[in-house]
Amino acid sequence: MAIRLGRNEYGKAEVRLVHVDRSAAAHRITDLNVSTRLRGDMVAVHTRGDNAHCLTTDTQKNAVYALAREHGVGAAEDFGLLLARHFTTEHDYIDGAGVELEQYAWQRIPTAEGPHDHAFARSGAETRTAVVTRDGDREWVVAGFDGLTVLKSAESEFRDFPKTRFTTLAETDDRLLATDITARWRYTGGRWEAGATDWDAVYEQVKAVMLETFATTRSLALQQTLYTMGEAVLREHSEIAEVRFSMPNIHHIAVDLSPFGMDNPNEVFHAADRPYGRIEAAVERDDAAGPGRAWDAIPGFV
Amino acid sequence: MAIRLGRNEYGKAEVRLVHVDRSAAAHRITDLNVSTRLRGDMVAVHTRGDNAHCLTTDTQKNAVYALAREHGVGAAEDFGLLLARHFTTEHDYIDGAGVELEQYAWQRIPTAEGPHDHAFARSGAETRTAVVTRDGDREWVVAGFDGLTVLKSAESEFRDFPKTRFTTLAETDDRLLATDITARWRYTGGRWEAGATDWDAVYEQVKAVMLETFATTRSLALQQTLYTMGEAVLREHSEIAEVRFSMPNIHHIAVDLSPFGMDNPNEVFHAADRPYGRIEAAVERDDAAGPGRAWDAIPGFV
Amino acid sequence: MAIRLGRNEYGKAEVRLVHVDRSAAAHRITDLNVSTRLRGDMVAVHTRGDNAHCLTTDTQKNAVYALAREHGVGAAEDFGLLLARHFTTEHDYIDGAGVELEQYAWQRIPTAEGPHDHAFARSGAETRTAVVTRDGDREWVVAGFDGLTVLKSAESEFRDFPKTRFTTLAETDDRLLATDITARWRYTGGRWEAGATDWDAVYEQVKAVMLETFATTRSLALQQTLYTMGEAVLREHSEIAEVRFSMPNIHHIAVDLSPFGMDNPNEVFHAADRPYGRIEAAVERDDAAGPGRAWDAIPGFV
Amino acid sequence: MAIRLGRNEYGKAEVRLVHVDRSAAAHRITDLNVSTRLRGDMVAVHTRGDNAHCLTTDTQKNAVYALAREHGVGAAEDFGLLLARHFTTEHDYIDGAGVELEQYAWQRIPTAEGPHDHAFARSGAETRTAVVTRDGDREWVVAGFDGLTVLKSAESEFRDFPKTRFTTLAETDDRLLATDITARWRYTGGRWEAGATDWDAVYEQVKAVMLETFATTRSLALQQTLYTMGEAVLREHSEIAEVRFSMPNIHHIAVDLSPFGMDNPNEVFHAADRPYGRIEAAVERDDAAGPGRAWDAIPGFV
Repeated sequence: MAIRLGRNEYGKAEVRLVHVDRSAAAHRITDLNVSTRLRGDMVAVHTRGDNAHCLTTDTQKNAVYALAREHGVGAAEDFGLLLARHFTTEHDYIDGAGVELEQYAWQRIPTAEGPHDHAFARSGAETRTAVVTRDGDREWVVAGFDGLTVLKSAESEFRDFPKTRFTTLAETDDRLLATDITARWRYTGGRWEAGATDWDAVYEQVKAVMLETFATTRSLALQQTLYTMGEAVLREHSEIAEVRFSMPNIHHIAVDLSPFGMDNPNEVFHAADRPYGRIEAAVERDDAAGPGRAWDAIPGFV
Repeated sequence: MAIRLGRNEYGKAEVRLVHVDRSAAAHRITDLNVSTRLRGDMVAVHTRGDNAHCLTTDTQKNAVYALAREHGVGAAEDFGLLLARHFTTEHDYIDGAGVELEQYAWQRIPTAEGPHDHAFARSGAETRTAVVTRDGDREWVVAGFDGLTVLKSAESEFRDFPKTRFTTLAETDDRLLATDITARWRYTGGRWEAGATDWDAVYEQVKAVMLETFATTRSLALQQTLYTMGEAVLREHSEIAEVRFSMPNIHHIAVDLSPFGMDNPNEVFHAADRPYGRIEAAVERDDAAGPGRAWDAIPGFV
Repeated sequence: MAIRLGRNEYGKAEVRLVHVDRSAAAHRITDLNVSTRLRGDMVAVHTRGDNAHCLTTDTQKNAVYALAREHGVGAAEDFGLLLARHFTTEHDYIDGAGVELEQYAWQRIPTAEGPHDHAFARSGAETRTAVVTRDGDREWVVAGFDGLTVLKSAESEFRDFPKTRFTTLAETDDRLLATDITARWRYTGGRWEAGATDWDAVYEQVKAVMLETFATTRSLALQQTLYTMGEAVLREHSEIAEVRFSMPNIHHIAVDLSPFGMDNPNEVFHAADRPYGRIEAAVERDDAAGPGRAWDAIPGFV
Repeated sequence: MAIRLGRNEYGKAEVRLVHVDRSAAAHRITDLNVSTRLRGDMVAVHTRGDNAHCLTTDTQKNAVYALAREHGVGAAEDFGLLLARHFTTEHDYIDGAGVELEQYAWQRIPTAEGPHDHAFARSGAETRTAVVTRDGDREWVVAGFDGLTVLKSAESEFRDFPKTRFTTLAETDDRLLATDITARWRYTGGRWEAGATDWDAVYEQVKAVMLETFATTRSLALQQTLYTMGEAVLREHSEIAEVRFSMPNIHHIAVDLSPFGMDNPNEVFHAADRPYGRIEAAVERDDAAGPGRAWDAIPGFV
């Protein structure tokens, strides 16, 4: 029996970068939370404290800021690719890299003279995410978002489920359905040249398709709503190989008002915190290339 | 020397109420987090465990749900007034009440056929708040919001401040200014009849004035920006007696890129978490009636 | 009608200071989160952006670190007094100051050779707090803690409360009682010389009295438990004028297992998140001096 | 091209169970946050909304509470095994299950008569975790904890790392090292009979070994500290196949006091929030069986 180092990664987490593009009178802001992960031959640093291969996390942080100045930022996916390539090509002891980016959206403040040139309000709905993974010279890009909360106050039912000795839930053909969508989609293809994909446009289109599908699908189960949303995205976006969702069922419980002599025709609900249903699934093309290491750096997905 | 009960209040915190108005084909959703506080002669319950005056917090919760069914919800301020009056007029051992409401905004999901009738996405920017306080038959209403984050990438300076033995900050005529606005405004007047104030319209107007003033004011200090915003609201809204702000200075630090042979013309910033500047102030009319107990239930304001 | 500046304060929030006392082989660590608030004639900075009186929050932060080096840290209360006196005596345009301190406890890691000299583990129970306020040359000290969660699985009842049309709660002579104690106590006296009070010793004693009283008191109402705890502290500590508590009732609901043919003799509980009971009260000496501005900087207490 | 369902799981998350064992005068409390995940043939529910295989998450929640009453709770690992076996053996359409448990520790409150029988205070340091996974009739158990924060104020250095064009970090032979340990260990073996492993005892031993190793190892790199800790556990616990750690480097930066004419001999530190170093690695036996699905339900580990 011997003891050895197993899988390992290290990097700098949550580098908060705000980039202001001042090239036009109307400034453009990119607000990112960037995390890096590197892989390589790291046996010596673990077993002997020999740091010869340990590109410091402080240096990784500096690279994020310096490359933002050198190249600008642009779409999160492009900046992630830039960073992943930087780390793996400039240091021969680094074999692979993952870069995770969260992006916070800002909108110009409306004024009497129109949207302001350099005053912004954060628009607080979902957080956009991008994860770029590079292993040798293979690359994967996964885009997505967290925290898009949606609700249907009609056209949701839940019936014909198994009844066991522990089942008390009643069947319903009219419940309030709410979920907080976390979505991730993996792009097909193996290398991306600058400008080949309009990441920002695809992002907006995918989000719109998901929302419209959620709205217009009669729900028989949250799982079916999820699958229909993923299917709709894949039908319209051949550049996407796979969509994964985590869509918790946020329970809204119609309050029993009968002790007060009142009915409650699905009008007054208690929104519960915990527990919640946890629904996670992938929808994929059967002819797409396998995911490789695309999902390594993305915790919490099946 | 004797020991006695001092100030005290009790209630039910964070009753999560979602109300669906189905009276038209296009449903209307009101999503609230309601907290109640009651005051009265509570010596016996504290000193002897005699609960005769202790309207249970469970009963308070039930009242929130039942009154939502009985009367509908409408504007947060109106629902708060309804609850405060209920607690103080129906129970002779209750002398005063505070009701705090947080409201989460939802928007209809856009579809090919227009905004959907019963599918909604939460619009995640600021959280609207209302605090209603009733003491005997006096009433106060304070409206506001939390979490409206704004940023100016130009026209902010900070100069001519005192230099002490502990001062290292450099003067600047071009910094990035960011803050997360918490605002509360107190309405003038002492009683409000249903429909006398269009709470929702005033809310949108006040927010718009604050944003536009933030955008269009050259900032010499965050305090001055704050005051100018409050002044603009009071000039346009005679129904408001006072505005209080908490506007933390969220520091964005231009990264020193000189070790890498680069300049940084206010383009690449580190957004710091802690510490942050804490700026709190009230702007008020000099002829307004005093605040009475309006601010009792509002923690964290000077 | 004119518009004017109302109450205002500003400072630096959440300066994270870790101080290592290396004067002995066994190091001593003080881990603090320090926030400052200053008051003075701040009309000009608000109305004209004239910063002549605006001791920058950056300078305040520097003072925290530099004074920690100059004087060491010691008890949180003493360090708070040092800072409050510094700000108000060194700058003639500053009239008052509040200093809030949170302290995180660390314990030496046990090893085969006993507690280690310079390796520590954070002991995660409650967070100790201190708030020092200075106005002119008057001073107040309020000590306390947040987040001490306690539970009684017997000897708690709740009966004989008012029944209204909205009451559904059943009376009980055996419930599970749980709360998350936030406590603050105000010291008597108006000036404190170094060493006059052993803040650390009183802190431990007060906490122990509160815990033992909670444990050994049969509870008829959470309010009565609260009062009894405060009374016990005041009986034993003449140096304390007043104790304030916020003790939310964290509901533990016995699960109804009857649909599964089981009873539940108070054995299986659901711990609910929201809503919760909000119980806040002060217990005070009737002959103590009034609180003055002691509570100004302490949000969330009645 | 066709679209199909990929990997999927569903369950009930965060069932808050507090169990009181009243079989002796001294009550015993088990405070758990239980989450379940099930797998099976779930194509129909996703693609057609056919719920015939969808054991509802509400039923899963009920099973947690009912089985706690039927069998008691005991060690988290045993309760997890009980639940995983229940779901997979009682429902032929369920092929696999994961059960995640968080456990919050409580201690008896000390009183003049000794530790109290039924009054407890939550001891807030780390959160214990257990994850049980069952696939067909194979089983895996992973134990661990989150949130054990430790610090060394001496005997930590960091030197001889690569210098690149983006490196500014200085070498040091005396830094303050702090981390927030998340640890998970996988047990060897494939089935566990009740009583075969004293989970509670192993938990305490593993934690103690980790702490003592952290304290007594001179650190050349956080990676080396991590590896040494894992190695020490594996040497002493043959029942453990593998240990995985996430040990963020929480940066404590010695404040530059030279502008104030002061030195800073590693005495005054700023504790930074973000960014932080992210250090994750596994330490494993080379002859252990592979992990199978043991880590499927454990997000965030490499």
